[in-house]
Amino acid sequence: MSSQQERVVIIGSGNWGSAASRLIGKNVTKSSRFEDRVNMWVYEEVLNGQKLTEIINTQHENVKYLPGYKLPKNIVAVPDIVEAVKGATVLVFVVPHQFIRNLCKQMKSAISSHCRGISLIKGIDFNESGPLLITDIIKSELNIPMCALSGANIANEIAAEKFCETTIGYENLEDGKLMKELFHDDMFRVGFVKDVAGVQVCGALKNVIALGAGFCDALEMGNNTKSALMRIGLIEMQRFAKKYYSNVKVETFMESCGVADLITTCYGGRNRKCAEAFIRTKKSWNVLEEELLNGQKLQGTTTAKDVYLTLKKDNALEEFPHMVTIYRIAFEGLPVERIVLDI
Amino acid sequence: MSSQQERVVIIGSGNWGSAASRLIGKNVTKSSRFEDRVNMWVYEEVLNGQKLTEIINTQHENVKYLPGYKLPKNIVAVPDIVEAVKGATVLVFVVPHQFIRNLCKQMKSAISSHCRGISLIKGIDFNESGPLLITDIIKSELNIPMCALSGANIANEIAAEKFCETTIGYENLEDGKLMKELFHDDMFRVGFVKDVAGVQVCGALKNVIALGAGFCDALEMGNNTKSALMRIGLIEMQRFAKKYYSNVKVETFMESCGVADLITTCYGGRNRKCAEAFIRTKKSWNVLEEELLNGQKLQGTTTAKDVYLTLKKDNALEEFPHMVTIYRIAFEGLPVERIVLDI
Repeated sequence: MSSQQERVVIIGSGNWGSAASRLIGKNVTKSSRFEDRVNMWVYEEVLNGQKLTEIINTQHENVKYLPGYKLPKNIVAVPDIVEAVKGATVLVFVVPHQFIRNLCKQMKSAISSHCRGISLIKGIDFNESGPLLITDIIKSELNIPMCALSGANIANEIAAEKFCETTIGYENLEDGKLMKELFHDDMFRVGFVKDVAGVQVCGALKNVIALGAGFCDALEMGNNTKSALMRIGLIEMQRFAKKYYSNVKVETFMESCGVADLITTCYGGRNRKCAEAFIRTKKSWNVLEEELLNGQKLQGTTTAKDVYLTLKKDNALEEFPHMVTIYRIAFEGLPVERIVLDI
Repeated sequence: MSSQQERVVIIGSGNWGSAASRLIGKNVTKSSRFEDRVNMWVYEEVLNGQKLTEIINTQHENVKYLPGYKLPKNIVAVPDIVEAVKGATVLVFVVPHQFIRNLCKQMKSAISSHCRGISLIKGIDFNESGPLLITDIIKSELNIPMCALSGANIANEIAAEKFCETTIGYENLEDGKLMKELFHDDMFRVGFVKDVAGVQVCGALKNVIALGAGFCDALEMGNNTKSALMRIGLIEMQRFAKKYYSNVKVETFMESCGVADLITTCYGGRNRKCAEAFIRTKKSWNVLEEELLNGQKLQGTTTAKDVYLTLKKDNALEEFPHMVTIYRIAFEGLPVERIVLDI
């Protein structure tokens, strides 16, 4: 019986991974479809002389990345990636994307032959030929079907059980339903789209549009202007997704991963905040990351650069005037007023 | 030659009508397609012993409804509706909707036989059988083709020439293009949709969703929740429009009149503000209208009631849980926490 049950493993244990583990840990116990125990691979750290995995497994709290919220007792922290994923049939990826390839190579021989995965990783990658989805990177390493989850999901608000929605992009409906069962909750409503690429492109490009929202806030241009720029940004996100991924669906942009996440990010996120400060203080991005984000890197500026280089290579700059203007304000000293004039 | 030119007349001279007259007055002089003179029908009032029409025609400023911004000199205020519309080939309607029928009856015999119109009037009407578009009311009275214009358009921000967008819904493309020529400007970008109904339904229902945003703000539920409720509201706006107007287009909701106006209204508008105060102060809507709006009526509460009664009659309440919950919180004493629980 047990061998037919799904064995779920969470790869990652940061702020978002810990919040997600609260949902997953609860949901697996509701259905006989899943084994109760869920391993969570934790990048081992030592806090005040104690290992983080030990703290999680005894106090049931990730005191470093999600302090103040208990994790379910069936979430078991495991520091060794191969041991963590042994026999896994469902993998939940929630690590910074630069670690993905290396982790996949290590886990490849240990997972079940009928394993599938879902990526909660924000952003997309770029190489010389263009954008590269995180799910495609994982597929190329592990050769497993992949879903993606993204939405207006601030981890601490989810942990506090404040109502929100999310979107799962799937390739085949059965996998989508399985993943929904893992995440769905009264306070965390899961929507569905058959569009793995669109969901991930939204999650990456909204950070670029949020830089524009921050520039607009610094100009004190009023609500009409800000909502117009957000709308134009949403259209360019859609145009970009369709240009590089032909199966992208229009509906995706009306889901939580599209319009809702864009709104949240353009009103509350750190990309918006740093972009406003960039104009007001004239400080460099590096200094702002140091001062406002404790040295963490902004995703929006990196993505703006990647998008610009890709569009330039493909002779498509004029199809994306808003994202190009945002890049030029951020990196080429274009006056911020051009945010509306160059559309 | 002059007889082939379009004669444009603006019906109304409030805050929005006056801001629109600045765009129209400028645009007609750019093209030989239009007569330079544009009559503006003004509901006559006396200010400090002087008639409002005289003030507008001498000072070129609507000192009561749009103080601080000059109107173009080719905008001519006319207090008599029949005289104002004589020979008109293009009518721009921008009066409170309760005056429409009576005005139409008066102007019917004076307008040109090939006249067309555009409605800038916010909101829709309801009767016993359901929603009633302002453009359909005008068509039933004057039997002329009608367009509708709506968007994230706060009149004072437009007068201050802050960048924004708007949407024109048209029935036939030629009329749409004509109307675009009247309004389009570098700082007031006109988008197009072949969807007269969708544009107007957006303009009305966004005020209901903004009440929900205000309730959410009072609960201090955070950004995830607010953007989720806005997104669900947008989907219900779309569902409602499709239910009552079969030709409504999905794209309309991605235009300025859809997502952008919804964002503006849920962050900045008076419906949002009064709804937050309704929860925080427990005062009645009437008292809040008195205290916060100088006795002006809220559009969102009236529309919420009309929508509820229509859906109830049509046994469709369960298709619109969010708008129904907003109505019940606003009028039936439902606890505000249900805003998320009843979705």
